[in-house]
Amino acid sequence: MRLALAQINATVGDLVGNAARIAEYVRRAEDLGADLTVFPELCLTGYPPEDLLLLPRFLRSAQETLKELAAGLPPRVPCLVGTIDGRPGELANAAVLIFGRRVRAVYRKKLLPNYGVFDEKRYFVPGEDPLLLRVRDALVGVTICEDIWVPRGPAWEASRRGAQLIVNISASPYDAGKIHQRIKLLKDRVRESRAAFAYCNLVGGQDELVFDGGSLVLDAKGRVAARAPQFREHLLTVDIDLSPSRRTPSGLVIVPVPIPASRRPGVPASPITPPLSEFDEVYSALVLGTRDYLRKNGFTKAVIGLSGGIDSALVACVAVDALGPENVVGVTLPSRFNSAETRSDAEVTAKNLGIAFQSIPIEGVVREFLKVLAPVFAGRPPDLAEENLQARVRGTILMALSNKFGWLVLTTGNKSETSVGYTTLYGDTAGGFAVIKDIPKTLVYRLSLWRNGRPGGPVIPETTLARPPTAELRENQKDQDTLPPYDLLDRVVQMYVEENRGLADIAKTGIDSKVAERLLKLVDLSEYKRRQSPPGIKITPRAFGRDRRMPITNKFRQ
Amino acid sequence: MRLALAQINATVGDLVGNAARIAEYVRRAEDLGADLTVFPELCLTGYPPEDLLLLPRFLRSAQETLKELAAGLPPRVPCLVGTIDGRPGELANAAVLIFGRRVRAVYRKKLLPNYGVFDEKRYFVPGEDPLLLRVRDALVGVTICEDIWVPRGPAWEASRRGAQLIVNISASPYDAGKIHQRIKLLKDRVRESRAAFAYCNLVGGQDELVFDGGSLVLDAKGRVAARAPQFREHLLTVDIDLSPSRRTPSGLVIVPVPIPASRRPGVPASPITPPLSEFDEVYSALVLGTRDYLRKNGFTKAVIGLSGGIDSALVACVAVDALGPENVVGVTLPSRFNSAETRSDAEVTAKNLGIAFQSIPIEGVVREFLKVLAPVFAGRPPDLAEENLQARVRGTILMALSNKFGWLVLTTGNKSETSVGYTTLYGDTAGGFAVIKDIPKTLVYRLSLWRNGRPGGPVIPETTLARPPTAELRENQKDQDTLPPYDLLDRVVQMYVEENRGLADIAKTGIDSKVAERLLKLVDLSEYKRRQSPPGIKITPRAFGRDRRMPITNKFRQ
Repeated sequence: MRLALAQINATVGDLVGNAARIAEYVRRAEDLGADLTVFPELCLTGYPPEDLLLLPRFLRSAQETLKELAAGLPPRVPCLVGTIDGRPGELANAAVLIFGRRVRAVYRKKLLPNYGVFDEKRYFVPGEDPLLLRVRDALVGVTICEDIWVPRGPAWEASRRGAQLIVNISASPYDAGKIHQRIKLLKDRVRESRAAFAYCNLVGGQDELVFDGGSLVLDAKGRVAARAPQFREHLLTVDIDLSPSRRTPSGLVIVPVPIPASRRPGVPASPITPPLSEFDEVYSALVLGTRDYLRKNGFTKAVIGLSGGIDSALVACVAVDALGPENVVGVTLPSRFNSAETRSDAEVTAKNLGIAFQSIPIEGVVREFLKVLAPVFAGRPPDLAEENLQARVRGTILMALSNKFGWLVLTTGNKSETSVGYTTLYGDTAGGFAVIKDIPKTLVYRLSLWRNGRPGGPVIPETTLARPPTAELRENQKDQDTLPPYDLLDRVVQMYVEENRGLADIAKTGIDSKVAERLLKLVDLSEYKRRQSPPGIKITPRAFGRDRRMPITNKFRQ
Repeated sequence: MRLALAQINATVGDLVGNAARIAEYVRRAEDLGADLTVFPELCLTGYPPEDLLLLPRFLRSAQETLKELAAGLPPRVPCLVGTIDGRPGELANAAVLIFGRRVRAVYRKKLLPNYGVFDEKRYFVPGEDPLLLRVRDALVGVTICEDIWVPRGPAWEASRRGAQLIVNISASPYDAGKIHQRIKLLKDRVRESRAAFAYCNLVGGQDELVFDGGSLVLDAKGRVAARAPQFREHLLTVDIDLSPSRRTPSGLVIVPVPIPASRRPGVPASPITPPLSEFDEVYSALVLGTRDYLRKNGFTKAVIGLSGGIDSALVACVAVDALGPENVVGVTLPSRFNSAETRSDAEVTAKNLGIAFQSIPIEGVVREFLKVLAPVFAGRPPDLAEENLQARVRGTILMALSNKFGWLVLTTGNKSETSVGYTTLYGDTAGGFAVIKDIPKTLVYRLSLWRNGRPGGPVIPETTLARPPTAELRENQKDQDTLPPYDLLDRVVQMYVEENRGLADIAKTGIDSKVAERLLKLVDLSEYKRRQSPPGIKITPRAFGRDRRMPITNKFRQ
């Protein structure tokens, strides 16, 4: 049986565009003589469509687009497409089988995730019936994403009813290393059900989520038969051998799939793209997430405040790799607290990346602010108010450039400072997209070193990498005047935020409990800042945002 | 039977504080000789606790606090308290019956809302068993919130098993006029089940939600026997006559409740507080929501940018009524585009309210910004960039005051401008709490007139009420240069946002379809701004925020 897994990049709400993309890939699969072409979960609507699913006219449009899509596809090229099925109140997350110019069968997702970033029980009712296809005499069971994430679930049930191959269509959001988790999971399912598995995953960025593709076919022995690349569209084709099944399970509708009319070219090589290395993978997620956020929201160019520090340098690298150097503008916004060295580092980074670079000094504006505030501030010593003021002047200038030229401001805050609120609201958090908001500072360093090691040579200056982190908002300021060292901070944040561990538990790991207590309190008290910060790319198992829904008003402590 | 419904104001996460409040009300109910004292849904944890419910240590703390609470309560005063029950993975939203120093019975909520602002399926598993109490020979069925919102649901089932009185503990979030919907609903349930109903609702503000109390007792004929006031704590006591039940339903655990030891004073009058009038109700929700957001987050004082317009005037009224005039500071931030009349209106409003008032002109700062931007902006005509700049200078000054003095900035944007994005991100949206973000402009006018009509006389100047709305960001600017009249705009927003109606449907009401199309597009395109705006009080059936979860990246149009 020749399978084609079409790992496409869909856009939420773009029904017509997504349908056109599906049609294009079906035609490519036809040329390759595929018996069955498989598309990701909800690829007609984009994933996740969120409250669009509550609009009756969206449901109608999706149904109409599906009908038109089916009518326009080559009739003898069976394909399985992820879309919605049913009316408001009984809507399902579905896989529809199309051939002969119309929808022939519908499978409704049984297990609806309602945890983490998922809200599927807000929108969908669970399906009840299995769907088995007969393809070239073999039995194929259909499942959707979560359906294969539990032992003895719908995939296993389908195999018990005779399915020799389980197809799973997914929209599985990326976090670091998740591809290895998926491979392990699929091998577990193979062992349990003794069926082959074909896993087709979405690719692309959608607000805070990146879908990483990496579609995969395992044979019934659990061996990888084919694997698609991550982070880009791909049509993965593979021939798998399944013996003809004599079983005709009773009480089940089995949909026979026609054999394609087209001539079959020689068996294509089964490509097995190895998973990316750790840093390549995370960096690629940042690049795709950034590129897609701009592209899908109609932006071409981005502007970044380059401080000479490592965070903005890394964001500039990502932006250049996502958009091209001609579409990135670096702006340095020096005050009297910026050293000559950081100013020069900002310029060198811009030059190394080949991006436009401007310098707009903020000293005069800050002075004028302090002048009008002087009567009110009289007698009060300088404090955070004056520090934040500088950050807000910078934010205001970047937003003025954004408004004047239509550039999207990329913010440069990392997860460490976002966690403990070491940021200025409307200052360094001002912007459209927070590229590295889920990257801890220690990982910022590692990614920067990795990026510097890529072909083309180092981009981020040695001095930027070596300098102790500083916000440069007062004389000789260092992050570590206020915060514990980042390796410690990042460990605490990981335990508290990602692993839901409390103070007692964290203290047991040997971390000073006074230090930990202060950090946890800072994380809690900064929720209001995060709530007003721009979206950014989820990289860790628990990102701030839809993934971690903490109240702002919250008196629970530890 | 003497019932006491304790409509308390709980705080999310404040287990110890909430337990103390429960104990205080139990003692008050004891003095009144209540047979059963009822508390709102999840009043021990606060509602909604959101992802606190994913923390094992939070669940443990709640269990321990409950045990301590039960041990410390007067032993012969039975009470029903809303809290959580069970371990992670099988957690329930529960009502626990306490007497004799410990928990005697647990009811687990059956119907879990997972729509609108609710995410209960993210946290809870549904209960299966009914709970019936025998109180002075009568049978009482226990239900929780959503359990009574569907016909023939858990309340009806309890009545079929013999319950003569259904107690419902709720945390039902406010929207305008919802109390009338609840009364109708309860009457429907009475008719269906022929039982009396006692409905105990939470009161207080929690981030974007306000709970309005208004607890209520209906007799088995559907007549109101008692009703608590809205928007404040109250202990509602009432005697209701229930004939002794001879039924002993089989297969059911019926928990007998002891008769209190205390002497019973004379039957208390059954107070029936009438619901508030339309504007009083909405205004009271704003006052309570604002007061609780500040108080529960540790703020005493608020600062408001007073433009001389109606939005900031109304917010100042709410702030004064919530916090007292001594805790509100008005700041006017004039530029050359502000007329002498608006400046004077701002001052008059502050004087009428008796609040501190400061004037900080922004002209010098704006000029300095334009100077440093001049080389980059060279050759470009003034546009939105220059307008937004002024708003951001104002936002920055208000935030500087906030940082220096610990005042919370209240923003003044209404729902009309929030909908269509007629706001400046990091400018007029900069602040901690958006008091009127869910109040359409037309309602801003009505509320202002109503507030002016209250005892004490008008506060908002006539000229403010009469002047055509203007942002005053350029010469002779009027909102209606850019937007259709607000009565039209508000009708379109209501249909599109609150009623989920599309363009075709809206055009059918006689609204020009070109105008409507432009407005809908503005609503869609402004999602990114709303995502970075401060929280504010839900007033309508569908507020922006957790209530309406639209993707930012979204190509669906109409």
